[in-house]
Amino acid sequence: MVEAVEKLTKKSEDPSRWYLQLVRMAKLADYGPVRGMFAIRPYGFAIWERIQRDLDDRFKATGHQNAYFPLLIPESYLKKEAEHVEGFDPELAWVTIGGREKLEERLAIRPTSESIICDFYSNWVQSYRDLPLLINQWCNVLRWEKVTRPFLRSSEFLWQEGHTVHATAEEAREETLQMLGVYRDCFHETLAIPVLTGMKSPAERFAGAVETYTCEGLMGDGRALQAATSHDLGQNFAKAFDITFLDEQQDRVYAYQTSWGFSTRVIGGLILVHGDDRGLKIPPKLAPVEAVIVPIWRGKNKAEVRSEAEKLHMELKASGLRVEADFDEEHSPGWKFNEHELRGVPVRVEIGPKDIEKNQAVLVRRDTGEKEFVPRDGLPERLRTLLSDIQENMMRQATEFRDANTRHAASYDEFQEIIAQKRGFVVAPWDGTPETEQKIKENTKATIRLLPFDRQEGADLVSGKSGKTAIFARAY
Amino acid sequence: MVEAVEKLTKKSEDPSRWYLQLVRMAKLADYGPVRGMFAIRPYGFAIWERIQRDLDDRFKATGHQNAYFPLLIPESYLKKEAEHVEGFDPELAWVTIGGREKLEERLAIRPTSESIICDFYSNWVQSYRDLPLLINQWCNVLRWEKVTRPFLRSSEFLWQEGHTVHATAEEAREETLQMLGVYRDCFHETLAIPVLTGMKSPAERFAGAVETYTCEGLMGDGRALQAATSHDLGQNFAKAFDITFLDEQQDRVYAYQTSWGFSTRVIGGLILVHGDDRGLKIPPKLAPVEAVIVPIWRGKNKAEVRSEAEKLHMELKASGLRVEADFDEEHSPGWKFNEHELRGVPVRVEIGPKDIEKNQAVLVRRDTGEKEFVPRDGLPERLRTLLSDIQENMMRQATEFRDANTRHAASYDEFQEIIAQKRGFVVAPWDGTPETEQKIKENTKATIRLLPFDRQEGADLVSGKSGKTAIFARAY
Repeated sequence: MVEAVEKLTKKSEDPSRWYLQLVRMAKLADYGPVRGMFAIRPYGFAIWERIQRDLDDRFKATGHQNAYFPLLIPESYLKKEAEHVEGFDPELAWVTIGGREKLEERLAIRPTSESIICDFYSNWVQSYRDLPLLINQWCNVLRWEKVTRPFLRSSEFLWQEGHTVHATAEEAREETLQMLGVYRDCFHETLAIPVLTGMKSPAERFAGAVETYTCEGLMGDGRALQAATSHDLGQNFAKAFDITFLDEQQDRVYAYQTSWGFSTRVIGGLILVHGDDRGLKIPPKLAPVEAVIVPIWRGKNKAEVRSEAEKLHMELKASGLRVEADFDEEHSPGWKFNEHELRGVPVRVEIGPKDIEKNQAVLVRRDTGEKEFVPRDGLPERLRTLLSDIQENMMRQATEFRDANTRHAASYDEFQEIIAQKRGFVVAPWDGTPETEQKIKENTKATIRLLPFDRQEGADLVSGKSGKTAIFARAY
Repeated sequence: MVEAVEKLTKKSEDPSRWYLQLVRMAKLADYGPVRGMFAIRPYGFAIWERIQRDLDDRFKATGHQNAYFPLLIPESYLKKEAEHVEGFDPELAWVTIGGREKLEERLAIRPTSESIICDFYSNWVQSYRDLPLLINQWCNVLRWEKVTRPFLRSSEFLWQEGHTVHATAEEAREETLQMLGVYRDCFHETLAIPVLTGMKSPAERFAGAVETYTCEGLMGDGRALQAATSHDLGQNFAKAFDITFLDEQQDRVYAYQTSWGFSTRVIGGLILVHGDDRGLKIPPKLAPVEAVIVPIWRGKNKAEVRSEAEKLHMELKASGLRVEADFDEEHSPGWKFNEHELRGVPVRVEIGPKDIEKNQAVLVRRDTGEKEFVPRDGLPERLRTLLSDIQENMMRQATEFRDANTRHAASYDEFQEIIAQKRGFVVAPWDGTPETEQKIKENTKATIRLLPFDRQEGADLVSGKSGKTAIFARAY
């Protein structure tokens, strides 16, 4: 039985259609009965599990512990921090009935957990000896969204949220920047997504934060994606939730806090940055399957090829590689090549009668399509080197694309032209006022993605007033 | 600064007070603003993480993959399987407002996910080649409970739920039993909790299942705890949600399904089975900290002892053990002994000036209190053996307790006397009718915990009719 082969739309032709089709064809996610809530299918979830493991190891290496806090937040708790509730109120889902009774106070499904975690922290933090308190939780959160897309914007999504408490403003700031660095390292070393890091403008800050830092990636279509954020909360929540401690001088003082989050949204980023007309490209470090063996057989030599391919499969698995062998008999090798390219498997290993004769196998890279013949003896080692090359090459390609699409604008006309025609990041001075920020957004749909750590002085392109470097882009 | 030491209630004096106090003092969980919803604190969560890793490895070894399905289930979906909604309806929490608008159809927070997962499966399953479908998810669920206790019964809890689809009734039954075995192995090998396995009576079956299998543990106070269940769903959900496939003969037929779950409730079981008057006892395989080093120092030799303890800490960590060193200077060694016994750390390693002189350390077992002097050279190996002995001994002790508290009743008077005075498991024939089951429950509060796989014939103690072995107990 041969199935009709669905053809993937070209990425350049219709990126939006390409994205949705790819998510479906690669079985990453699926639509459910409630608008904006998706199932993450096993292949998509296996990628998320590898991201989780990577990040979780980094969190633990920097002294953080995991915990779990309740899903539902009473309305009165959300209202304690005024800016916070203002920011999240439009997106809340409310539980009003429990156990067949109308609730006295309605309960929000967490859109983020500051307001419930701070309530616990006000009990757990009593003395300077309880600090720093370094806790993270992996959980689901819900923000009622009008326009949704799998991974990139969904009402329910999975994430981690770190919530820490410190004795001084300086320590909280250091933690905020440390976790920004942890995220950046994960993007660069594991996801092969180069990100720019810096501060958000006040208008783009997390509701209730003193300062928000961000990792911004550039997608294949030239739009930016806010990939992870780290917030310095100062004493805002400590004051609203009464988180105080006795310091070494026995004075009761307010604590300083941070929070930071990274979500399944990055899987959308992964697709958009690395995917191409053939489908996904998963960086080897994240790939649920690093290499797939496709036996090339015809009727008469099938038994021999199958047995050799099985042997090879065992050898490669025994060497610690994540390898699959595709012994399906319904489809041709060509069909399988397409299928595994669509799924973004980094390396294909072909083995046929000629290869057996020559005691070799064929390795084909997903990132470049390059083919090489490798002696069977050194295959695991060669595969390992190749996977590490692919990881590096994917990062290099993405960085080159990002750099080629980061432009300095010398005038507002040029700024508008770049955003309209090429997109990408635009570097330009900003006078620091919400008015010019708002004007640019209205004219061009571009927003300030970040204020880099190293800012140059210059004249704002709109107001002509003196300003400092900001990086603009149209964003997801 | 010396803190007032809170004294733990004796387990035998007031098990319920002991339990709650221990949960608080060992920082396992804490109460939040919404009734029945607890935070799992880092130490409690670290135990859960180890359980998760253990189970997840077993699931993957038996061919299962993880995925994630939406939190919210439309009312109409829950209603598709009639028994299922009847069973869960009283415990549901309903979302009625989202994004500031009243919803057209109210959405339940999942109490379990059959009804949303089956909707996806009706699309994913089309051909016999899509089967078996073996998926698990780790998530939070919510069942509105009136009387709650941390871990043992809470409105929100964490669990895993496996949901599989098969071509035949036989395969579904095999899967149900396989996963029951996976749970039993995890209880026996990792949690050191001996469980009885068998079938539930129809009255205790999962709402919508054809057959429910269970793992039942016996707690220290003689009450039973349903620790994990595995359900053969037959075609009930397949018919309600239209999960059909084309079989090899090209006929469209209904599929067979299973589901199985294991929750944070077992942490309550762990406390109740192993805990004693000194506090927790964590089986080494689950212990976030396998051994804690307590340096025994006085003013003049502090520097030397500290440096030796640090060296020892490094050595033991390098050998792959999960070891903590307690260098706190506020508290005495005696205070620390109590603290780490309360937390259930399996082994305490003491090192003082005399030990340094003799090139040895002192190992103290949490399970028996036994002390031994061990030469420094062979310490990692000895510790490893000791930890494995402790794991075995905890399982042996719990099994002896369970066996000593499993009694055969020869008459209904004896049955009632055992339940009233000694509790534990009572083995007696049951005639298979809901009437006698109900009568026993009303008279004694004991319920049928399970019908063992190997049942003997005998006369029902209540009706005198012919029956087969059932195992009764009062349950949590």
